[in-house]
Amino acid sequence: MSTANDTTARRMTLAASIVGSGASAKAWNWPGTKWNRFADFEHYKRSAEIARSGNLDAVFVSDHPALQRDARRGPGHLFDPIVLFSAIAAAVPDIGFVLTASTSYNSPYNLARRLASLDTISGGRVIFNAVANFNPDIAANFGADGLLDRDDRYRKADEFLEVVKKLWLSWDTPDGPEPQGPLWDENTARVIDHHGEFFDVRGPLNVPVGPQGYPVISQAGASDQGIDFAGKHAEIVYAALLEKQSAFDFAAKLDAAAQRHGRPADSIRLFPGVNVYLGDTRSEALRRHEAFSGADSEDGLIAQFLVQQRGLNPAFPDKVDADTVLKPEWFEPQEDQNRPIGFSKALQDLVRLEEPTTRQIVRRVGGAGGHRLVIGTPKEVADALIDWWADGAVSGYNAHFPLLHHDLERFVEQVVPILRSEGVFPTGYDSPTIRGRFGLPEPSTTPTEEAA
Amino acid sequence: MSTANDTTARRMTLAASIVGSGASAKAWNWPGTKWNRFADFEHYKRSAEIARSGNLDAVFVSDHPALQRDARRGPGHLFDPIVLFSAIAAAVPDIGFVLTASTSYNSPYNLARRLASLDTISGGRVIFNAVANFNPDIAANFGADGLLDRDDRYRKADEFLEVVKKLWLSWDTPDGPEPQGPLWDENTARVIDHHGEFFDVRGPLNVPVGPQGYPVISQAGASDQGIDFAGKHAEIVYAALLEKQSAFDFAAKLDAAAQRHGRPADSIRLFPGVNVYLGDTRSEALRRHEAFSGADSEDGLIAQFLVQQRGLNPAFPDKVDADTVLKPEWFEPQEDQNRPIGFSKALQDLVRLEEPTTRQIVRRVGGAGGHRLVIGTPKEVADALIDWWADGAVSGYNAHFPLLHHDLERFVEQVVPILRSEGVFPTGYDSPTIRGRFGLPEPSTTPTEEAA
Repeated sequence: MSTANDTTARRMTLAASIVGSGASAKAWNWPGTKWNRFADFEHYKRSAEIARSGNLDAVFVSDHPALQRDARRGPGHLFDPIVLFSAIAAAVPDIGFVLTASTSYNSPYNLARRLASLDTISGGRVIFNAVANFNPDIAANFGADGLLDRDDRYRKADEFLEVVKKLWLSWDTPDGPEPQGPLWDENTARVIDHHGEFFDVRGPLNVPVGPQGYPVISQAGASDQGIDFAGKHAEIVYAALLEKQSAFDFAAKLDAAAQRHGRPADSIRLFPGVNVYLGDTRSEALRRHEAFSGADSEDGLIAQFLVQQRGLNPAFPDKVDADTVLKPEWFEPQEDQNRPIGFSKALQDLVRLEEPTTRQIVRRVGGAGGHRLVIGTPKEVADALIDWWADGAVSGYNAHFPLLHHDLERFVEQVVPILRSEGVFPTGYDSPTIRGRFGLPEPSTTPTEEAA
Repeated sequence: MSTANDTTARRMTLAASIVGSGASAKAWNWPGTKWNRFADFEHYKRSAEIARSGNLDAVFVSDHPALQRDARRGPGHLFDPIVLFSAIAAAVPDIGFVLTASTSYNSPYNLARRLASLDTISGGRVIFNAVANFNPDIAANFGADGLLDRDDRYRKADEFLEVVKKLWLSWDTPDGPEPQGPLWDENTARVIDHHGEFFDVRGPLNVPVGPQGYPVISQAGASDQGIDFAGKHAEIVYAALLEKQSAFDFAAKLDAAAQRHGRPADSIRLFPGVNVYLGDTRSEALRRHEAFSGADSEDGLIAQFLVQQRGLNPAFPDKVDADTVLKPEWFEPQEDQNRPIGFSKALQDLVRLEEPTTRQIVRRVGGAGGHRLVIGTPKEVADALIDWWADGAVSGYNAHFPLLHHDLERFVEQVVPILRSEGVFPTGYDSPTIRGRFGLPEPSTTPTEEAA
């Protein structure tokens, strides 16, 4: 219905991560909070309500279908995202859902049906964040074969997306008045008869084409295979990007990948993650960052960064001074590393492009790597977000907050009004569906060559 | 927490099926209804609200993860039950959920997590109705191997239940004040290291033990394999039973099966299905039955029964008069039949025990077989329900209604008050959890020999 780029060219899109107790390892038992709120539905529902009160486009959950190894932080991934978002959908209007689910450990028919059900029930508010999963702890919960290698995982993910897209468009229901005769036939409910390397699925899906055709497809893997997969299937990409030039470079890669798969160059919206630390003054924001990192001071942050990077990178030297310029070769991603390739690449890019010292880098990214830190007063945070967006490097952000609900509430109360007054963020929901809001085209119910 | 039988000895339990537009093939476009409400979440939510207004224990959905073959009736199984009930759980308090899900076409880790998430989010309102699935149309949506044979399906179902029960009890979270030190260790979050014929699952589950330990387990298959599976795992059995003696006989079989697996004889609650047709007079109820069956008269019902039974049963004679006594050998279940064995057995039992004519049988069961018809005034319906229950044959009923919402509303307004005034049905919810309401014991978090 809507055409690409008419809306997103004019406004920033924002999602808020509502994983667990907050993005900080210190969040779960922060003074004044209920320590076990990670197991309380009302906690998640309230996060979604706060996000909605600021007109944020969506709430986001990553997922990890295994109990995490580190028992000193609250369990981030507890409720299944399908169940969690289905429950929130019935309780909170408008807000969208970035629903992370595995293409390695779901069957395409069941997941297509569950996502289509939620997309219809919520009136078109679903973004399917397809992940192939790289973690052997997850693999061990789903069979004896262990992890597929990355090429196989992405070949499977590609076939999975092919199947679910075909299923999502397989059954057109009539609009308007009561139909005479059968409710469907082989022309309106089409078998897909998919037979591939990983899946055999007949169809049609028993949920009709939904309010936005099918859920918006997003992706977050930054390996070469991940980027190629995004080029073929993704409409949104979440990424770790630590400075603006990397965002332009990454967007160019995505454009090239999309074009390789016969799609227009501007098919993919880029949403980097940001970790937001707010203070009434810059100094207060810096102290908040130090407190939630567990380092308690700038020297603590420096020590933490060096210890963690040494543990993660075989090439990282034993002795690095706080004011030594870091070298990109110390941060070389490992093919078999058990954490996102994108986090390693983002850190290496930052080091290569800006030649920072450790003292400088600890205000840009967490000690173990990860998403961009945006630290400061509400005005400074808003300016930092507007900066990349206004330059066209990104379509918006996926914001992480150290402490839920506190920092999300503060963001909505103090940063969102500035974004609005600068004319970059809306004051209401202009479309019931995510596709409508993001200016993404609805998929055609006539499968294309690509999808067929 | 509660002990078996203290509550159910004193009160009837009732669930209402909220599948699609109602149990009748005529329901979807019945005059005065919105024809496509089978795709409208508000329709299902309203059904749950009506059920709750009568203090019904639960709403029930069967499931069929494939588009049904018959396109002349509304699609009964559209929204995925996990999504549907998660959404209803956030919108409607108190009501329980009989959630049908396949042990053949889900992975135990994902389903255990999804059901545990919903059980926690809903405060302990989930009954897991485990089905092995016998339909080749479903199998074709989940791989190229086709249907497993019944023995294999039930061996897989048995192992599935073993795994999910172990997962559900694998992670104890601390109650009370904030724990010092790690939030779990190998004693409180236990790997299950399951390695079996069908599944390999490490665990622990990343959702802690829920408000009722784990969801109540129910089952509905009436084959020998199904009854054995029920004996080992089920706490509730749904069944097609057309007269009281069959209910006693079936309950005895379940008791024997439970005892074979080392459980007490009264471990399983029996809930037959009933199809309820209400009228202000008996005659009006009979007319409603004729109208919703599509037969429009008693002669029409007779003709319909004969045509359908001839189509289903190879041994059914070509010429049977309306007043000929039916013979049990005409209704012999076929090993490979593509409909529930329980429906065939129930019909055959009725014919054997009561020697009815076709004219008599058409007010007892639908033309194609199925659940018991209960037709009459509110008082007659209430008496029929109380009759079996008071004799101890059954613990309650799973009620199906020809037209949703109309007939469910009428049942709640007209039959429930009689059940209450007779002292067999409660006026409120006496426990937040299904186990509490049904008097079912909570599973021990120390796995037993049986479960281990």
